[in-house]
Amino acid sequence: MSRETDPEARIPDGRIHGDIPVVDAASAAEHVPDDATMFVSGFGSVGYPKAVPLALADAAAGGRDDGSEDAGAGRNLSLSVVSGGSVGGEIDEALVEVDAIDRRYPFQAREAINTAINDGRVAFADRHISSLGDDVRFGGLVDTDGSVAVVEAVAVGPDWLIPSTSVGLTHAFVEAADTVIVEVNEDQPLSLSAFHDVYRTGTPPERDPIPLTAPDERIGGPRIAFEPGKLEAVVETTGRDAPYEFRDPTDVDLEIAGHLGDFLEQEVERSSLYDDSLRIQFGVGSLGNALMGALGDADLGDRDLIYYGEVLQDGLLDLLDAGELRSASATSLALSTEGQERLFDDAERYAEDVVIRTGDVSNGPALIDRFGVVAVNSAVEVDLYGHVNSTNLGGSRMISGVGGSGDFTRNAPLSVIALGSTAAGGDISKIVPKASHVDHTEHDVDVVITEHGVADLRGTSPRERARALVECAHPDYRDDLRAYLDRAGATGGHEPVDLDTAFDWTDRG
Amino acid sequence: MSRETDPEARIPDGRIHGDIPVVDAASAAEHVPDDATMFVSGFGSVGYPKAVPLALADAAAGGRDDGSEDAGAGRNLSLSVVSGGSVGGEIDEALVEVDAIDRRYPFQAREAINTAINDGRVAFADRHISSLGDDVRFGGLVDTDGSVAVVEAVAVGPDWLIPSTSVGLTHAFVEAADTVIVEVNEDQPLSLSAFHDVYRTGTPPERDPIPLTAPDERIGGPRIAFEPGKLEAVVETTGRDAPYEFRDPTDVDLEIAGHLGDFLEQEVERSSLYDDSLRIQFGVGSLGNALMGALGDADLGDRDLIYYGEVLQDGLLDLLDAGELRSASATSLALSTEGQERLFDDAERYAEDVVIRTGDVSNGPALIDRFGVVAVNSAVEVDLYGHVNSTNLGGSRMISGVGGSGDFTRNAPLSVIALGSTAAGGDISKIVPKASHVDHTEHDVDVVITEHGVADLRGTSPRERARALVECAHPDYRDDLRAYLDRAGATGGHEPVDLDTAFDWTDRG
Repeated sequence: MSRETDPEARIPDGRIHGDIPVVDAASAAEHVPDDATMFVSGFGSVGYPKAVPLALADAAAGGRDDGSEDAGAGRNLSLSVVSGGSVGGEIDEALVEVDAIDRRYPFQAREAINTAINDGRVAFADRHISSLGDDVRFGGLVDTDGSVAVVEAVAVGPDWLIPSTSVGLTHAFVEAADTVIVEVNEDQPLSLSAFHDVYRTGTPPERDPIPLTAPDERIGGPRIAFEPGKLEAVVETTGRDAPYEFRDPTDVDLEIAGHLGDFLEQEVERSSLYDDSLRIQFGVGSLGNALMGALGDADLGDRDLIYYGEVLQDGLLDLLDAGELRSASATSLALSTEGQERLFDDAERYAEDVVIRTGDVSNGPALIDRFGVVAVNSAVEVDLYGHVNSTNLGGSRMISGVGGSGDFTRNAPLSVIALGSTAAGGDISKIVPKASHVDHTEHDVDVVITEHGVADLRGTSPRERARALVECAHPDYRDDLRAYLDRAGATGGHEPVDLDTAFDWTDRG
Repeated sequence: MSRETDPEARIPDGRIHGDIPVVDAASAAEHVPDDATMFVSGFGSVGYPKAVPLALADAAAGGRDDGSEDAGAGRNLSLSVVSGGSVGGEIDEALVEVDAIDRRYPFQAREAINTAINDGRVAFADRHISSLGDDVRFGGLVDTDGSVAVVEAVAVGPDWLIPSTSVGLTHAFVEAADTVIVEVNEDQPLSLSAFHDVYRTGTPPERDPIPLTAPDERIGGPRIAFEPGKLEAVVETTGRDAPYEFRDPTDVDLEIAGHLGDFLEQEVERSSLYDDSLRIQFGVGSLGNALMGALGDADLGDRDLIYYGEVLQDGLLDLLDAGELRSASATSLALSTEGQERLFDDAERYAEDVVIRTGDVSNGPALIDRFGVVAVNSAVEVDLYGHVNSTNLGGSRMISGVGGSGDFTRNAPLSVIALGSTAAGGDISKIVPKASHVDHTEHDVDVVITEHGVADLRGTSPRERARALVECAHPDYRDDLRAYLDRAGATGGHEPVDLDTAFDWTDRG
């Protein structure tokens, strides 16, 4: 196990090592069986393969059974596509447009795949990121017979690769897959190697604890190993990621950030867990990005601020540049294009303080617990008893997937849900009588913050929780929420609900 | 740290060690402030304090503001009572009857406290067992100023005690509490010391991994330590636990056990996780007890069967006696009175194979993961997409609490929910369109088993899940469930729901 402390020492000389079968993308795509389980690298919309999926889409383009001129001329693909997190349009648009994807796991963030899922054309299931590696390694999630892992890398050897802008679950995918196809992308700098820290968890019941003793420690090296002989093809590619685009922080974002900062200032004084440092995670997205950026304004005394989360977004880069963040651990460099350029220009320096880990370490339940991470995630809606919907609009229409929100919300000693009090320009309250879908239960949610305030739910009964949460709702909805609570209270019980009207507010889409 | 491998060496000579303030229960009760947070030992309805709670109830008996003759004559108690798990009537009946409990955490199983919770007279919140210790140690759950831990023990010294029939979270309670009162119960044999293995987790962010490398290993000793000077009083008591009473297995229980056995026989052959052994957990209750007992009939080849769960019930004792169980790890000896007698008569021999741990180790998320435990828990209802209600009848009426079901269901690589397909003599389907309360989400539930069959939900989309679960419902309800799915499907979406009729079946109580 390599634990080079000098970032430069983790960067290999050259991209292709040893006697490697370099082919073009179309040839590589022929190694993907029509009905294969195709594992792909990628997380946070970066580090995904680009050329082979496009070649597959090209090959399938004539295969549609739609009466068109070229019907039946192409490959008839029915792939099960498994990624670590969200990937680019080369997969979740191009392959969807040719009906090449039958199944998709466990997270997506593009309109084409999303529409196909909600129309029932693609069978989708979201999974916790921390357990996805085991799900594919030990079976039960997908059929791995004839499966292929298609992975973007900055360097490759006969039995190893170095991932590009994300690590995710790629180490588990190349272990589970029968064969491996690597895209070596020359637009992804070799210096990305300096960020990566790959650790492979053992097999239960003899699985050792993950030996990480601090959020910024390194316990592996940049290489992902796989069995010699699995490497089917290498394709030399170009092309940048199409990462997330964040909107500028809104007034509501900044008000939420202010409340969060105030709350954290009190909490770090109250609890012995934060005597020396605050370890924190933020969910992916524009609000999370804004909250990260604003955290520099909180007065944490002499405490170090440390990020232990899933993705590195631009807000964290700002904090690093300002000297306000000691270190960051994540599984993806999910930066904007501008953020990637800042990072690439000075990769070795950033790699002193930034570690990109495997997804089962970045999101490891045991590590979130041991490091005492404060989790801050957003949501679609929160109900009056603290149940949280993160995934399905109106209870049924999937957005992206549960991702890592469950890993952090469930295992953090302090779990915060931060969200604007309304959606749709004020037409929808995000504080609702009853969550139309539940991803995180009342047992896991400690604090809810909106632009209207902080509801500290710890130690409260459901009735007390409801009263606190009404005060975080938009004023326009508070009377109606109280009226709901009166109706529910009349039915009695520990957690009073009025099932006849609980969903009267829910947007039916 | 003592790791005596000879059970006898873990048993102390005598019960009271050193210069200890022995008083009667009434005097000890005076050390509990009227509005205190009172932590009590006890888990699985065994090992709870008996004399001091009864003395408190006596002292309060005249304190009721009910216009009766002795109104105002007694203590006016408003306690917050925190236990590890369920406790006896001395607490959850006697103290409730005199309105002495204002708040109660995190689990209970007696009608008196349950009625008070559902009437809104006692503020209750259920918590995961694995995180309860941190909740009280690091604050946020209850006020610990002036708090008292009242603990049943088999032996006590100036700064230590040895618990009786359960360990639970007692180690965290004596750490969080300002003072400690110990009941030394001479009807609880000293030989119980031989079972206990107390380990104290460290404080984040420097918390080490729990160093347990095998389910039957010992990493501590029988003693729970506390700060010298906290010991306020010791009371010598007698009196046996009032443990759970299990019904005999029903035909439905046995049919479920048969399906579970068949499923496990296939699964251990399929996955490399079970090459040498099957580690398994069962939830508390009559069904769990029946499933444990019936597991001896499954053909697991040469594999060892190992229990890693929360409570030791009679079914496991039967398996141990039959030589079909290699070892058992739990936090409570939640046996019937007859089972306790069997165990007490031969404690040192049983303690070779049975370890009673602290609740954060018995239920530790990291350990459930590292040992690859198969979790088998029951439920109130399961919905067509795999969301599980374990706690609230009709969405509102609390039964007992989430207990350890979330710890195991969330962290096990294979989570099974086993339940009869109907309740109320067939009048209620336990397979429902939409769970009226969600404790475990679709992301955590892998397999559902009823007397009608096995639904393996792994890798399935919600629509596929629903079809599989309809086949596990009672035949009388299948057509109605299909009709619901047709209505829901018309609204579209990834996980189609018809919010207008989703709760039409729910029992409103």
